[in-house]
Amino acid sequence: MDTVTIAIVLGLLAVIYGLLTSRQVLGAPAGNARMLEIAAAIQEGAQAYLKRQYTTIAVVGIVVALILNLTLGTVSAVGFIIGAILSGLAGFIGMNISVRANVRTAAAAQEGLQSGLTLAFRSGAITGMLVAGLALLAIAVFYGYLTGLAGHGVGGADRTVIEGLTALAFGASLISIFARLGGGIFTKAADVGADLVGKVEAGIPEDDPRNPAVIADNVGDNVGDCAGMAADLFETYVVTLGITMVLTAMLVSATDPLLMPLMSLPLLIGGVCIVTSIIGTYCVRLGASNNIMGAMYKGFLVTAVLSVPAIWLAIGHALGDINAEVMVGAREVHGFDLFHCALLGLVVTGLIIWITEYYTGTGYRPVRSIAKASETGHGTNVIQGLAVSLEATALPTLVIVAGIVIAFQIAGLLGIAYAATAMLALAGMVVALDAYGPVTDNAGGIAEMAGLDDTVRERTDALDAVGNTTKAVTKGYAIGSAGLAALVLFGAYTTDLRTFFPGLDVDFSLENPYVIVGLLLGALLPYLFGAMGMTAVGRAAGDVVIDVRDQFASNKGIMEGTSKPDYARTVDLVTKAAIREMIVPSLLPVLTPIAVYFAIMLVAGRANGFAALGALLLGVIVGGLFLALSMTSGGGAWDNAKKFIEDGNHGGKGSEAHKAAVTGDTVGDPYKDTAGPAVNPMIKITNIVALLLLAALAAG
Amino acid sequence: MDTVTIAIVLGLLAVIYGLLTSRQVLGAPAGNARMLEIAAAIQEGAQAYLKRQYTTIAVVGIVVALILNLTLGTVSAVGFIIGAILSGLAGFIGMNISVRANVRTAAAAQEGLQSGLTLAFRSGAITGMLVAGLALLAIAVFYGYLTGLAGHGVGGADRTVIEGLTALAFGASLISIFARLGGGIFTKAADVGADLVGKVEAGIPEDDPRNPAVIADNVGDNVGDCAGMAADLFETYVVTLGITMVLTAMLVSATDPLLMPLMSLPLLIGGVCIVTSIIGTYCVRLGASNNIMGAMYKGFLVTAVLSVPAIWLAIGHALGDINAEVMVGAREVHGFDLFHCALLGLVVTGLIIWITEYYTGTGYRPVRSIAKASETGHGTNVIQGLAVSLEATALPTLVIVAGIVIAFQIAGLLGIAYAATAMLALAGMVVALDAYGPVTDNAGGIAEMAGLDDTVRERTDALDAVGNTTKAVTKGYAIGSAGLAALVLFGAYTTDLRTFFPGLDVDFSLENPYVIVGLLLGALLPYLFGAMGMTAVGRAAGDVVIDVRDQFASNKGIMEGTSKPDYARTVDLVTKAAIREMIVPSLLPVLTPIAVYFAIMLVAGRANGFAALGALLLGVIVGGLFLALSMTSGGGAWDNAKKFIEDGNHGGKGSEAHKAAVTGDTVGDPYKDTAGPAVNPMIKITNIVALLLLAALAAG
Repeated sequence: MDTVTIAIVLGLLAVIYGLLTSRQVLGAPAGNARMLEIAAAIQEGAQAYLKRQYTTIAVVGIVVALILNLTLGTVSAVGFIIGAILSGLAGFIGMNISVRANVRTAAAAQEGLQSGLTLAFRSGAITGMLVAGLALLAIAVFYGYLTGLAGHGVGGADRTVIEGLTALAFGASLISIFARLGGGIFTKAADVGADLVGKVEAGIPEDDPRNPAVIADNVGDNVGDCAGMAADLFETYVVTLGITMVLTAMLVSATDPLLMPLMSLPLLIGGVCIVTSIIGTYCVRLGASNNIMGAMYKGFLVTAVLSVPAIWLAIGHALGDINAEVMVGAREVHGFDLFHCALLGLVVTGLIIWITEYYTGTGYRPVRSIAKASETGHGTNVIQGLAVSLEATALPTLVIVAGIVIAFQIAGLLGIAYAATAMLALAGMVVALDAYGPVTDNAGGIAEMAGLDDTVRERTDALDAVGNTTKAVTKGYAIGSAGLAALVLFGAYTTDLRTFFPGLDVDFSLENPYVIVGLLLGALLPYLFGAMGMTAVGRAAGDVVIDVRDQFASNKGIMEGTSKPDYARTVDLVTKAAIREMIVPSLLPVLTPIAVYFAIMLVAGRANGFAALGALLLGVIVGGLFLALSMTSGGGAWDNAKKFIEDGNHGGKGSEAHKAAVTGDTVGDPYKDTAGPAVNPMIKITNIVALLLLAALAAG
Repeated sequence: MDTVTIAIVLGLLAVIYGLLTSRQVLGAPAGNARMLEIAAAIQEGAQAYLKRQYTTIAVVGIVVALILNLTLGTVSAVGFIIGAILSGLAGFIGMNISVRANVRTAAAAQEGLQSGLTLAFRSGAITGMLVAGLALLAIAVFYGYLTGLAGHGVGGADRTVIEGLTALAFGASLISIFARLGGGIFTKAADVGADLVGKVEAGIPEDDPRNPAVIADNVGDNVGDCAGMAADLFETYVVTLGITMVLTAMLVSATDPLLMPLMSLPLLIGGVCIVTSIIGTYCVRLGASNNIMGAMYKGFLVTAVLSVPAIWLAIGHALGDINAEVMVGAREVHGFDLFHCALLGLVVTGLIIWITEYYTGTGYRPVRSIAKASETGHGTNVIQGLAVSLEATALPTLVIVAGIVIAFQIAGLLGIAYAATAMLALAGMVVALDAYGPVTDNAGGIAEMAGLDDTVRERTDALDAVGNTTKAVTKGYAIGSAGLAALVLFGAYTTDLRTFFPGLDVDFSLENPYVIVGLLLGALLPYLFGAMGMTAVGRAAGDVVIDVRDQFASNKGIMEGTSKPDYARTVDLVTKAAIREMIVPSLLPVLTPIAVYFAIMLVAGRANGFAALGALLLGVIVGGLFLALSMTSGGGAWDNAKKFIEDGNHGGKGSEAHKAAVTGDTVGDPYKDTAGPAVNPMIKITNIVALLLLAALAAG
């Protein structure tokens, strides 16, 4: 069987795993009538939100598809549409599983911790495998069609495959930034709003059914942490594997017999790691110590270790021989060089997970220092949290830098691409770890609202605490891989530039002030974007507060428990606010590269326009990497510092320290769930728009 | 009279202005015995702190001087010592005026707002003129001696002057980072600690004499906002003018008759702007509307407008003709080109002041949005503050980018240097606006402690509110000029590299992965540094809390007002903590460039080592610019949002909104006064160390 076909089969395997496991999960008991009623409200809200979100995105998507069709042709437009639709689909399915697994997890947690964990993790694994499987299928089928049925060659003059894959990546990225940001604004506006008006003003506990925003809050977990995250990781997968293939097509001679095998190798690596990920999911089991995080790591470790021989076999199979040699640009690269780079990618993934756990886990200095600082008040909690968030950028950066240096020493730019590809090959497992978080979070809410036994809530809380760390881990992993992928994207940009404008002498040296200008403007983007995201959450949360106050005032029966609040009204309000607020910031990374190119071109000529644009791409990563790492780790640390206090430390629940920790958690919310994670798709979009702009300028 | 001599005379003029105005200020009535007693305690504390700080720095300084003497020779060592001593002196004198003007301002405020403003502003003007005057004298006298008495030539093979000026800048920078950081930690640890244990725990108002940390808090204003700031701006002045001269020596042919006039032109620009600054200080007067900020702007505007013809005349005088033409590298530059660039620098300064006022003034959307967000609690206050702080980076960056593009179009790299020089030429006036802040802050404290009439406190509060904005303005101005200066420093680095290692082909292109590595590591530095600074404040503030609690517990008479707290004990404790905490972060930017060069050299060879080091320099500015802008503007906005509420908005003092705003202010404190402003000297140090490393490697 040829490599692409194997990859397609393995992609299908992931989808089949998803379907089979879905049947298992949906077959589990769903609890009593009250639980089902609550779950139905959440499902309804989530569906209503996603419907409106995708309708809005569809409008933008159709416009972009038409523009692509006009400027770059039908293949690009089709690629874009495939990427966009599948990215949306990954989020949609994940969300649909999640809103059904939540109530079943609550029911399972009545039996015990292991039952709850199994159910929640399986539902996460469905999302994980579907993300990885659909992403792999999207690239493999599209690539297989273009090079097979459509008969396009790779490399040389025919750029159809390169542009098709780039457009596919663009589709995935564009949807994912909307989904990440819209979902992020929804979830945090509902969360912060519900807390402010419920916990602070009305003095009722979290997830109290009397709070009109409580369903919106639970909907938010699903549309943000599940659907948004799934679209994001789908995007990261497609872009990383796609750009590795594009770079291969650009750097390897069209006459090299190993070009085609090398093109399909990333697909096969993705495929075999789906198998290792599936095996890993079966190894997530609590040991004697009931350590939930330990159970998760067991699964991840099995996947990572099994991936080593799997990738070795994949390279050997695709290239015919692990010693096979191919000229990549001016450099000789062997099969085993790529293997070493992939291995490096696995190590980088492991280290980033380990560092993130250190910065966000309740067992280590950073979280404990925030918890301790809460004793002296809100201010010191926030100061320490900010200090931790700044510090948390250091080790991941050093790891990424080391990864860049080593991969480049081994196999040049393609080596960096393979390190990133191997990182993303584990996406199925990483997403599984993450997607289980919102399920347990929701399960806790349902247990609370349905008045289940306290032990159930304790179990879901224990599961949820780990979710904070795994959520931070996924974001660190996504942004870390973006750091590597951005280099590859930049390499594709410069290579493309030379292909399209062979006579043009573009000076990318730091001595060219337009390069500095590009770097500064690029670094500004994530700041501006973050500001918009944070402001949007604040504004939308304010709307929630006003709505809930109004409901309390106009219907006195709500607080007395004699009449039900109008949950749907709040959900509808947050939906509208999130959709309204996501548009402008999402278009920022799409339009800025175009604006910067034309502005500098007018002032200083075409070559400097391209130089500034290229520098912009790297500026976004230099600025964005730190902002995203600090926001996601800091937010996770704040959240778990609160949990640590709630576990009875520093005075426990209700103490002054706890109040301060709640403030820190509130601050961390839009940091870690809105602004921070959206930086990852943003980096990619900027880069891909630049690639498409080059192609459009060359064609026009 | 030759240009250098004129510059020296004008520098002396500034010093004479300082001495005469000091006599005026010190001649003003100093209030009653209680006020004098309090002021004496503050003086004593400030002196004790500075003594210990300078003793510690002296140890580091002597070691560095010895190393410089061994590697680069005596001239460099002497230059370093002059820079270090004068930088320290500027801070020392400024602080000494400030701790005497505070009590006199309190006394003057008894008469009226104008009297208080006049006294406080005059004392600020003394610090301002001494900073500018001493800085100008340091460069002019040292340069005059080297090229005159010592007979060194400029340009060509004799690098004594270049290295001497670089070492002078290094001395200033090294002292200033210690002073900024040590002072910043002191002031915020005392402030946060005093608030936490006083306002929050004991429920006594700010500046209550029963609080044992109250004197430490007032000492902090002087050693941080005054001495630290003065050393910082001294450094910025010396580095900016010095590097403009160094770049001139590198780029202009040694045989060009205009080389020497062009070398001394920055000194003359600095000199004439001292005159315009002195005139401006006399124009700071309240109008009919009693608008304090308006009075300040009047003074600044007079200085800026008068500087236009003054700089025109200076250029004409130094070059003999405003149309004079000189070859700078491969580019023809005319006198009027430099004039246009200087004009641009003035415009950039004005715009940055205007933008900073917008983001930190109580009359505009950003501060009001934070105040409004305080209504819904601590969390939303901090979220909105962080959003504002992120957003506040956008406009200054666009201004700086526009400045870079325009200056480069007009006169290349030297044009950027002249824009920066013109910015710094206004330092006397800008520092005057800033240094008045701590005086009024202290005056308010003394009024409170001495039990003066409430109207006095109201007047000092009104003066102090403006101080929050002017303090943010100075920091924005310093970091903005650092953005331009960093480019010039990088230009000097690359030029030096070619001079010292003519055969070596260093690839500064963004396509070189070691350049990316350098950029990432550079951008990491401000984050790590910020984390250390914030943590240090948190830790030291914790020490204060414990000490004060202990004093309250062991001496019950303190709270009853029957016995006096041991102020000196708290001052001593904060002093020790600040000194201990400042060492490691201050050495970070000194040692990192050296470590990165050697690490990358070992892995990838000398050329890549230099490439990574160069990229590190730009990475520091790309990362640091945004972090510093966001921290200083955000902090100022938080502070004034609190003041806005205290003025009776959103419920006023004592309301829940006010409590939330106090939290925001506490968070903003280490942001704006510790971590943020220290980024400016940090950027310069990294760059200068790189230049010195080059020279040492070439010599070794």
